Amino acid sequence: MTTLEIMGANAKKASRFLMTAGSKKNAALLAVADALRAHCDEIIEANSADIKNGEDAGLTPALLDRLRLDKARVDGMAAGVEQVAALPDPVGRILEGKTLDNGLKIQKVSVPMGVIGIIYEARPNVTSDAAALCLKAGSAVILRGGKEAINSNTAIAKIMRDALKTAGFPEDCVALVTDTSRASATELMQLSEYLDVLIPRGGAGLITSVVNNSKVPVIETGVGNCHVYVDDSADPDMAAQIVFNAKTSRPSVCNAIETVLVHAAAADTVLPKIKAELDKKNVEIRGCEKTRAILGDSVIPATEDDYAREFLDYILAVRVVDSIDDAISHIAKYSSGHSECIVTSSYANSQKFTACVDSAAVYVNASTRFTDGGEFGLGAEIGISTQKLHARGPMGLNELTSNKYIILGDGQIR
Amino acid sequence: MTTLEIMGANAKKASRFLMTAGSKKNAALLAVADALRAHCDEIIEANSADIKNGEDAGLTPALLDRLRLDKARVDGMAAGVEQVAALPDPVGRILEGKTLDNGLKIQKVSVPMGVIGIIYEARPNVTSDAAALCLKAGSAVILRGGKEAINSNTAIAKIMRDALKTAGFPEDCVALVTDTSRASATELMQLSEYLDVLIPRGGAGLITSVVNNSKVPVIETGVGNCHVYVDDSADPDMAAQIVFNAKTSRPSVCNAIETVLVHAAAADTVLPKIKAELDKKNVEIRGCEKTRAILGDSVIPATEDDYAREFLDYILAVRVVDSIDDAISHIAKYSSGHSECIVTSSYANSQKFTACVDSAAVYVNASTRFTDGGEFGLGAEIGISTQKLHARGPMGLNELTSNKYIILGDGQIR
Repeated sequence: MTTLEIMGANAKKASRFLMTAGSKKNAALLAVADALRAHCDEIIEANSADIKNGEDAGLTPALLDRLRLDKARVDGMAAGVEQVAALPDPVGRILEGKTLDNGLKIQKVSVPMGVIGIIYEARPNVTSDAAALCLKAGSAVILRGGKEAINSNTAIAKIMRDALKTAGFPEDCVALVTDTSRASATELMQLSEYLDVLIPRGGAGLITSVVNNSKVPVIETGVGNCHVYVDDSADPDMAAQIVFNAKTSRPSVCNAIETVLVHAAAADTVLPKIKAELDKKNVEIRGCEKTRAILGDSVIPATEDDYAREFLDYILAVRVVDSIDDAISHIAKYSSGHSECIVTSSYANSQKFTACVDSAAVYVNASTRFTDGGEFGLGAEIGISTQKLHARGPMGLNELTSNKYIILGDGQIR
Repeated sequence: MTTLEIMGANAKKASRFLMTAGSKKNAALLAVADALRAHCDEIIEANSADIKNGEDAGLTPALLDRLRLDKARVDGMAAGVEQVAALPDPVGRILEGKTLDNGLKIQKVSVPMGVIGIIYEARPNVTSDAAALCLKAGSAVILRGGKEAINSNTAIAKIMRDALKTAGFPEDCVALVTDTSRASATELMQLSEYLDVLIPRGGAGLITSVVNNSKVPVIETGVGNCHVYVDDSADPDMAAQIVFNAKTSRPSVCNAIETVLVHAAAADTVLPKIKAELDKKNVEIRGCEKTRAILGDSVIPATEDDYAREFLDYILAVRVVDSIDDAISHIAKYSSGHSECIVTSSYANSQKFTACVDSAAVYVNASTRFTDGGEFGLGAEIGISTQKLHARGPMGLNELTSNKYIILGDGQIR
């Protein structure tokens, strides 16, 4: 057996323990949180090595910042684990049930997934966040982080495993793949004998690679080419505020918008208001010909590629459309299926947009930035699914469980 | 674009129509049913060509029987479509909802998948059954049946498409891949731009191939290595009746059992009763040494492979185990995760077995043969999922839908 196969078999064994661990999981999570705080210095020391390697490798200041851990961030990691411990147990919910005419009593009950694989990139806090969520959901987890954070991740995983062992749990409830070569990621995607689901967290390149190569069922997360459509009936000020918030409050995240579509009848009024807001943060506008005719030559001509891209930056594509149907067609063509918004005062158009736009979250008169597990009240989030199978939109603890049927009889045969 | 890409793009377009088709779907389904009856002779004529080709190719009588259509079977296909029309619409259910403190009203609503691919084998009635279920669930469907039934499938698909067109629906709501080469199946598995989910229906070889090669999310169905465990506290007669029913009432289906595990303390009493029942249908028993010591040399020695196999025949593996824990471990090692049963009179053991056995359906004192969409009251069934993502166990119309969040605001920003 390869190293990863052994890791998979051990995780599967640990997952059998977790299936019936019940509320003992909370005590184990609190022990993990305590251990993270107690070993804060070790974590920061390991992280220093990653930071030094990152500086030598010429990582950007933004990436170095995502990688860096200090006492406050380690404390935040521990607090995150404690928050997960405090959430309701997603396992053992009776989802539905009935008694059949033949007397069989059928229940559909939420159960752990088994073994969850997470492939992620630079941020080391994902190591404890993801492990805590999987544990609480009753599953063992195999983590495979990026090479930039390998020293931090190794230290964090060891501290978690030791704490679990002390708490009477199999340490293999949490495992870290320390080989950060591309080959180890590929092998993890083939580990269908042991892994029940694989969740990639990171950029579009990582996610596409996992979707295309995995034999393990995948939950696709996080790519967000999101839109605001400003209807001809929209309140222009509300439209400008929503566009400004959705674009600029945090441009690097997946629920930020990349394109605004404006109804032709509203364009003369609305576009200058939107531009006035965006100018406050020097947002670059790439617009269609009609947009440029209204806003002037400072607007860069938009290309086909601009509509298809996730800028994740202070750049916004703008297109004037002739109707709500054109807006819906544009979204169907270019959207990644994450979050879209209509700004409107028309009841009929609000109904049409929410019915016809096929994305995980469809808003009327609100910023797309609300697509988030915390904002939706899920308590915590493992990612935002942009696929239609299993979970769609923000995924909390419930989405990390499966279900089974339990059928109680007294000798029924068919 | 290739033929399949064009088919995919057309299906995607048709799926946009279906998203908001509402109860018009029922009228279209009834039109399809009428058309199947009206064109019964055409279907039977096309089927005759398949039967002749099958005879020439030396298909077994059992396979020829599965392939054959007559007036009664075509009528059954039409009746099946009518039954689907009569079921409640799985689209538009409000699954949950709440109002956040900031006034946003969030609803989680069931929506169509979009485009569903079905890869299946010999039986031509799957063509109308699967199409009807997908249509009712608001999704377009791309069907790719086996080469043995290509003439029948082509005739059935054409009749359905014509009927849909007459009913005012895009004919591309239903499409059939007429190229039955392995290459067309492989290309369908790569069609992730257009397909939202792919469901293989057939034998273990087909399903493994789809799981291993698909870039489209897959729902794994149907392989059933199912077990009955007879506890030391079991009623011996109930145990014998359940084993006999679960093995022999229809050995070729996935919810039939392949292995019986008997507690050592009950083996002397229970095994002869089980054998007496099984002898009525000449079931071949392959047993462990302890089984052979009790039942005699007519029992064939069981190999490791016998425990891992889905016989789908009048063959049963039998093993004597020392404890319920040994039974649970055996099932964890060999089961395909479909259906398992404990026969017991112990409350504690019933609780332990249902908690610790990780399969789609876990029974206490009832035959595994009840794992079926019809028996579970789902109204219809597209297959039985043995994976943990999205759906597990019998899949009805609800399991053919996805969901989205609709969020209503009045200008909220974050």
